[in-house]
Amino acid sequence: MTEQAARWRVLIVNGPNLNLLGRRETGIYGQRGLEWIESSCRERAAMLGAEVACFQSNHEGELVERIQQAMGQTDLIIINPAAYTHTSVAIRDALLAVGVPVIEVHISNIHKREPFRRHSYVSDIAEGVIAGLGVEGYLLALEGGIRRLDAAERQ
Amino acid sequence: MTEQAARWRVLIVNGPNLNLLGRRETGIYGQRGLEWIESSCRERAAMLGAEVACFQSNHEGELVERIQQAMGQTDLIIINPAAYTHTSVAIRDALLAVGVPVIEVHISNIHKREPFRRHSYVSDIAEGVIAGLGVEGYLLALEGGIRRLDAAERQ
Amino acid sequence: MTEQAARWRVLIVNGPNLNLLGRRETGIYGQRGLEWIESSCRERAAMLGAEVACFQSNHEGELVERIQQAMGQTDLIIINPAAYTHTSVAIRDALLAVGVPVIEVHISNIHKREPFRRHSYVSDIAEGVIAGLGVEGYLLALEGGIRRLDAAERQ
Amino acid sequence: MTEQAARWRVLIVNGPNLNLLGRRETGIYGQRGLEWIESSCRERAAMLGAEVACFQSNHEGELVERIQQAMGQTDLIIINPAAYTHTSVAIRDALLAVGVPVIEVHISNIHKREPFRRHSYVSDIAEGVIAGLGVEGYLLALEGGIRRLDAAERQ
Amino acid sequence: MTEQAARWRVLIVNGPNLNLLGRRETGIYGQRGLEWIESSCRERAAMLGAEVACFQSNHEGELVERIQQAMGQTDLIIINPAAYTHTSVAIRDALLAVGVPVIEVHISNIHKREPFRRHSYVSDIAEGVIAGLGVEGYLLALEGGIRRLDAAERQ
Amino acid sequence: MTEQAARWRVLIVNGPNLNLLGRRETGIYGQRGLEWIESSCRERAAMLGAEVACFQSNHEGELVERIQQAMGQTDLIIINPAAYTHTSVAIRDALLAVGVPVIEVHISNIHKREPFRRHSYVSDIAEGVIAGLGVEGYLLALEGGIRRLDAAERQ
Amino acid sequence: MTEQAARWRVLIVNGPNLNLLGRRETGIYGQRGLEWIESSCRERAAMLGAEVACFQSNHEGELVERIQQAMGQTDLIIINPAAYTHTSVAIRDALLAVGVPVIEVHISNIHKREPFRRHSYVSDIAEGVIAGLGVEGYLLALEGGIRRLDAAERQ
Amino acid sequence: MTEQAARWRVLIVNGPNLNLLGRRETGIYGQRGLEWIESSCRERAAMLGAEVACFQSNHEGELVERIQQAMGQTDLIIINPAAYTHTSVAIRDALLAVGVPVIEVHISNIHKREPFRRHSYVSDIAEGVIAGLGVEGYLLALEGGIRRLDAAERQ
Amino acid sequence: MTEQAARWRVLIVNGPNLNLLGRRETGIYGQRGLEWIESSCRERAAMLGAEVACFQSNHEGELVERIQQAMGQTDLIIINPAAYTHTSVAIRDALLAVGVPVIEVHISNIHKREPFRRHSYVSDIAEGVIAGLGVEGYLLALEGGIRRLDAAERQ
Amino acid sequence: MTEQAARWRVLIVNGPNLNLLGRRETGIYGQRGLEWIESSCRERAAMLGAEVACFQSNHEGELVERIQQAMGQTDLIIINPAAYTHTSVAIRDALLAVGVPVIEVHISNIHKREPFRRHSYVSDIAEGVIAGLGVEGYLLALEGGIRRLDAAERQ
Amino acid sequence: MTEQAARWRVLIVNGPNLNLLGRRETGIYGQRGLEWIESSCRERAAMLGAEVACFQSNHEGELVERIQQAMGQTDLIIINPAAYTHTSVAIRDALLAVGVPVIEVHISNIHKREPFRRHSYVSDIAEGVIAGLGVEGYLLALEGGIRRLDAAERQ
Amino acid sequence: MTEQAARWRVLIVNGPNLNLLGRRETGIYGQRGLEWIESSCRERAAMLGAEVACFQSNHEGELVERIQQAMGQTDLIIINPAAYTHTSVAIRDALLAVGVPVIEVHISNIHKREPFRRHSYVSDIAEGVIAGLGVEGYLLALEGGIRRLDAAERQ
Repeated sequence: MTEQAARWRVLIVNGPNLNLLGRRETGIYGQRGLEWIESSCRERAAMLGAEVACFQSNHEGELVERIQQAMGQTDLIIINPAAYTHTSVAIRDALLAVGVPVIEVHISNIHKREPFRRHSYVSDIAEGVIAGLGVEGYLLALEGGIRRLDAAERQ
Repeated sequence: MTEQAARWRVLIVNGPNLNLLGRRETGIYGQRGLEWIESSCRERAAMLGAEVACFQSNHEGELVERIQQAMGQTDLIIINPAAYTHTSVAIRDALLAVGVPVIEVHISNIHKREPFRRHSYVSDIAEGVIAGLGVEGYLLALEGGIRRLDAAERQ
Repeated sequence: MTEQAARWRVLIVNGPNLNLLGRRETGIYGQRGLEWIESSCRERAAMLGAEVACFQSNHEGELVERIQQAMGQTDLIIINPAAYTHTSVAIRDALLAVGVPVIEVHISNIHKREPFRRHSYVSDIAEGVIAGLGVEGYLLALEGGIRRLDAAERQ
Repeated sequence: MTEQAARWRVLIVNGPNLNLLGRRETGIYGQRGLEWIESSCRERAAMLGAEVACFQSNHEGELVERIQQAMGQTDLIIINPAAYTHTSVAIRDALLAVGVPVIEVHISNIHKREPFRRHSYVSDIAEGVIAGLGVEGYLLALEGGIRRLDAAERQ
Repeated sequence: MTEQAARWRVLIVNGPNLNLLGRRETGIYGQRGLEWIESSCRERAAMLGAEVACFQSNHEGELVERIQQAMGQTDLIIINPAAYTHTSVAIRDALLAVGVPVIEVHISNIHKREPFRRHSYVSDIAEGVIAGLGVEGYLLALEGGIRRLDAAERQ
Repeated sequence: MTEQAARWRVLIVNGPNLNLLGRRETGIYGQRGLEWIESSCRERAAMLGAEVACFQSNHEGELVERIQQAMGQTDLIIINPAAYTHTSVAIRDALLAVGVPVIEVHISNIHKREPFRRHSYVSDIAEGVIAGLGVEGYLLALEGGIRRLDAAERQ
Repeated sequence: MTEQAARWRVLIVNGPNLNLLGRRETGIYGQRGLEWIESSCRERAAMLGAEVACFQSNHEGELVERIQQAMGQTDLIIINPAAYTHTSVAIRDALLAVGVPVIEVHISNIHKREPFRRHSYVSDIAEGVIAGLGVEGYLLALEGGIRRLDAAERQ
Repeated sequence: MTEQAARWRVLIVNGPNLNLLGRRETGIYGQRGLEWIESSCRERAAMLGAEVACFQSNHEGELVERIQQAMGQTDLIIINPAAYTHTSVAIRDALLAVGVPVIEVHISNIHKREPFRRHSYVSDIAEGVIAGLGVEGYLLALEGGIRRLDAAERQ
Repeated sequence: MTEQAARWRVLIVNGPNLNLLGRRETGIYGQRGLEWIESSCRERAAMLGAEVACFQSNHEGELVERIQQAMGQTDLIIINPAAYTHTSVAIRDALLAVGVPVIEVHISNIHKREPFRRHSYVSDIAEGVIAGLGVEGYLLALEGGIRRLDAAERQ
Repeated sequence: MTEQAARWRVLIVNGPNLNLLGRRETGIYGQRGLEWIESSCRERAAMLGAEVACFQSNHEGELVERIQQAMGQTDLIIINPAAYTHTSVAIRDALLAVGVPVIEVHISNIHKREPFRRHSYVSDIAEGVIAGLGVEGYLLALEGGIRRLDAAERQ
Repeated sequence: MTEQAARWRVLIVNGPNLNLLGRRETGIYGQRGLEWIESSCRERAAMLGAEVACFQSNHEGELVERIQQAMGQTDLIIINPAAYTHTSVAIRDALLAVGVPVIEVHISNIHKREPFRRHSYVSDIAEGVIAGLGVEGYLLALEGGIRRLDAAERQ
Repeated sequence: MTEQAARWRVLIVNGPNLNLLGRRETGIYGQRGLEWIESSCRERAAMLGAEVACFQSNHEGELVERIQQAMGQTDLIIINPAAYTHTSVAIRDALLAVGVPVIEVHISNIHKREPFRRHSYVSDIAEGVIAGLGVEGYLLALEGGIRRLDAAERQ
């Protein structure tokens, strides 16, 4: 599938320490790594008529700038801000500035962990939130998000 | 697909006022009703090799008892406890008693609404949570949940 | 006065333990019972050109469903949710769904009692609140509510 | 009706900025001014066998002193402390000192506004509270209050 | 022992999910079921000159109504409100209305569990509270309660 | 004793509703009025070589201005801010501006009353506080305050 | 019954001011004194095949040391820490160190008293808690505790 | 410059104790007094094509009334509510009623002082806030405010 | 003056670290020691027709027991619980048990110090509180307390 | 004006997402971009005898390091930390370390937005704060700040 | 090494239940007892030119008095207040009175335990705190403390 | 000592602004700089049979990545996260991912500073914490940490 043919452009953003996915704390996060997520999302997106760009960084500023670049270039942002979920107003502000629909994903169920993980600076500005469904959560976000884009287009 | 052939039994439980879905406050909840959710879930489940039982009630006690009946009869509970999300320890206790994996679904993004909607008595005992993705959220929960059951079986 | 002639249809909803009114704790709630309230409201309503339907239940789910039935059938809901005032998001959601103007009534002055009675899940979605004026509060709610309906109609 | 014939003496006290009523923020407070309230209350009171004295001030100290003067001269105080509802312990103390039954009135529904408007220094020492029913609330307070005085007298 | 001969009438009320007792989560609640509790209480009561009526429901409204029926028919209520301990003002109000001495029982030690289980809407209106002593707690409540009734009668 | 001979000039300031002292709520405040306090303080001051000026007002602004006038004219302020204790930053600021030692007096024990009476905007900028010792508290404040002035002078 | 024959050794520990029991505040604590409690417990224990050692102190340190001495010498501690319930981490730590099952007893219903009495440093490390059942509470604790020891032994 | 020629009318309101400015606590507030502020503002305003009216009071009620008089007579209010910043809902309500743009000024940096000075009843209804820049803050508010009026006019 | 002749018996209780008074932290507590307080109180008491017993301890348990011994032997307790002010429910309970009027004294102004020093377990059960007036506070408490006893006797 | 001639060196620091200024969310932030701010500040500074260095970054660490470099090289820092206002202790610590006077600027009125925007880690260590006056706020900060430097120099 | 030769005198104070160290809860506290700590500290101190006095008590009052005795006799206090860390203002006050540098030691990491163990009445008046490094923490405190004394002496 | 011979590999991580150590705010942090810490640690480590790697950054993301690189390469992390202590969940997550024992060091006593410095995102996942002992704290952490590694190895 060529890039031009894709009906939707999706940006998948992963925050700090997700580069270690599948290598550590597999009891919490499972055994599949970031590569699996990114390639599975690409595949699934292709089936759904979308193209996917992926970005991971441990630096808040780099995440802010990647989100800024999505302005006018992206139809949907799927973001797992990881630790920055709970501490970054800068990422929130970047998402607000870009004005693209956002779906927030968390691999583990953040409600079962430390109390500070229950607060997100992203949830109340996102379209939706998926948590606790493992790396599958990205695929579900992709499906759910694209169906919403399709439905909005139909109206 | 016949009912006997289903590999997984799923119970979909909907709480108070969801019987009005599609008829009121369509700005928040969308235009598709409970019937759409239930028939769509049945269809999708059939494709995934699962059978679905559906239950809706406005009565906390009836919801508790329906959950109790799932003990030993169900492999997955998908629940949208609606208003009881925020007030019912009894439903939490029933889910704890039954010991079946649970996925919590909310049609609207509860993080964008009144502050009291941010606390759920179910989230920290659920496998996962999907919020804000509209009625599609049930289908995503079904997919995500069944994939987890399949994966667990494979191990 | 015949029912057809009534210009306004009013639903009066009473919550748990109000069936005991006039029989217990008369120091707090006075000596007039639910029957007095309901028949007085009917009489007064007739004088004001309205008809009244009354409902009392100790079951949250039944209250939810009676409110749901008011959709499109009622011009004004006068509700004393009693204990559910402080605990029921389901009744709040039903009132929100029905979209009919609501006046909340409390027989006793809830501000003089236990601190948890100071929070109501209904007040911020009601037109107005009357508390502490005894069973007369229902009649005042009726008068105030109908005058508002009349005034709105005149505009 | 002559003043001597009145069975009950009622004092109606209005707090700061209510002198602007009907001239500003009519979306919240309606279009009828303080004069309408005062003359309507006088009329309604006459029908109920009561006489009414009215007082408005923007000065906390003047409100305190007018309430003090009611000692032994008044059977009922109807007060809308407006902004001082939330900040004046001095008005509370004057009402406590005078020992006359008090009904608190608010024109708008204070539960729908800023959170600090939910706390009142008067509510827990008042007989009752009426909020959100517009300027009609004063008339309802008058009726409700006088019926209580009549009822107490009958016992 | 015949029912007429009983000096005291005791009502034992059990809240939601206690019908599952002995079948699930036996690590927390033990292996003896509701039947054991009820028959043991009947036996013990007979020895102490009392008769026992038992009631279990998962419905808040049914619990409220069963408590209401105890008015004038019961000398002591032993109640384990289970999940409703933490959420039901309606049950509190019913107990207040009935005016019968109450002993609150919890099978598990609620102080060792989730923080929200530490607050009870019943404790501050009960005579006493027994928690964490397993199903034996009901028998101890029965003994303690009846001794208090005997002692009060002697005075 | 002539005014010139007085070694110390003391200002006694009383806040709102203290003009009613001895006439209302004598169970809390006792039966001696403001006149008794003022004349007793004058007498006691004369014995201690001090002269006393007294001021009472129900107006926050007047209290602020009377305190301002004490600048450079007064050696000690004894103040019972009454209700303004808990709400007036303006009086606090006036006392800070004047820079004269302050003793705060409360007739009743504010720790036994409503929780909001436990916070004072004056206590942490006063030399000392006397509460609950009735109208005698003013005399004790006078004695204690003058002894401190004498002691400071001796050094 | 001789000491050697006792199957279980129970230590009953009473905290500060309980030496005054039966002499003061009998409205809250009843008229039976510490001696009654101790001798009744000894008697009841003998019937249940247990021996009882009793200790009361007003000194936190002495209570800590008496609990320490129970290490390996006691099968059950029944403790009414009285005022230290709410303030002593040292007693909590001693109980944790000793590792013997604990039942906490309060004569009055601490839930009906000052809010600070609702927090206990012992409850969440005790087996169970009995409150509000008067001095009988010790006997119920004894019975309940010994039955648990018997039951554990049988397994 | 004549009054008619001024393009903009500005009201400068100063709250309690600011009449002492420059005479006391010069470490916090500096050595320039209220007169300096008022004459400097008049001068600067003239340069910017505006006329200035100044008002200071220690009385909350007088401040409320002066603000009310600005209705329809003023294009900009610059207010330093001083102590009333933290306690006056009445001033907030007057500003809301008048509907004129407001700039809030504080001479000292309120964030460096007592915690209660961090909350303002004016900030969230003002256009902007300037704090800690000394008496110069008034001039900056004047410049900033007038530039905004000019800019709005140009559009 | 002989002990028999004393009309009133006063107990002065001082808590932990007050044995160091006058030797350390004289900037906060002044230079006069415990001996000065005790002998001054004895002298002043003799002048007022009272006798004084003094007690200081660093041990909570000893303070509890000394207070217990005052039962029936003392007409007034003046107590400076020092550090135990903020932590000892046991001393509160002893004072409650003894039922003698209490005046609480603090040498320094506890409102100017660490926030935890603002809460006292004694203030709300004391007749009155004197803080910040140095060691003179004891003498003022003595005078104030004895005058109250005299006044009560006269009634 | 040449750089050597400048009497004061000012550093203007802008935090994350301010590089987008004027391009997005113009309803909140206005239509003028970062370039306008920087060039306007340079011009105005030149008029006031100062030179300006400007720095913007989305990276917390870069902001920290740019502030560090100001040590000994700068007379005034004007900073709009944007999102880092609310989350960055590191920037606070850098400002503390550098010891240069700071003026904090916010373009929008942070008091009108989400509650978390009301807390700033910079305000209590800044000289002053300007909020809500749009991009003009930078110029006002420049004027106010330089006048303060001039005034300090004159002393 | 003789006692006279020691350059520094160190007092090591251990609070309640530390006499049990090494005998109970070895999972948390390790297997080395109080004797090991005391003798190791003596040895290490000798190497560092210091002498050590050790004291353990379960009594708050005894700990207070032992600290008091250190006044002028000790150069450094190393204290593990154990349970009294969280509850004893009296020990805090004794340490403040003595004015000797203090190092606080905790054997276990108090941040990993119950939330109430996170607050210490000693930390903010200590020079430093060492927690979670086991009984070695005492030796590290000794080294760190003596090096500080040596360094201060050198200056 | 050659690198190969080292028995333990220690990583010393320093957070933002610690590159300025010894140059600014020497009253709080002392006069020795980061170089002193790093070279002293290297020396001391060599004596203890360990080798040390040092890293400082002002960038949260760089700190996260340096910690990630320690996975499998390091036996002990000594970290002073400085400002990030209080704000970085990302560093916490990196430390959790790496699974190496951690000792947290703070040069100043964070308990004596602003309240927000009392919370650490690292303390509850660290082995231990050393605060307030100056730059010596690093050496003590090194000693303490290596002794623990030695002890663990011996078992």
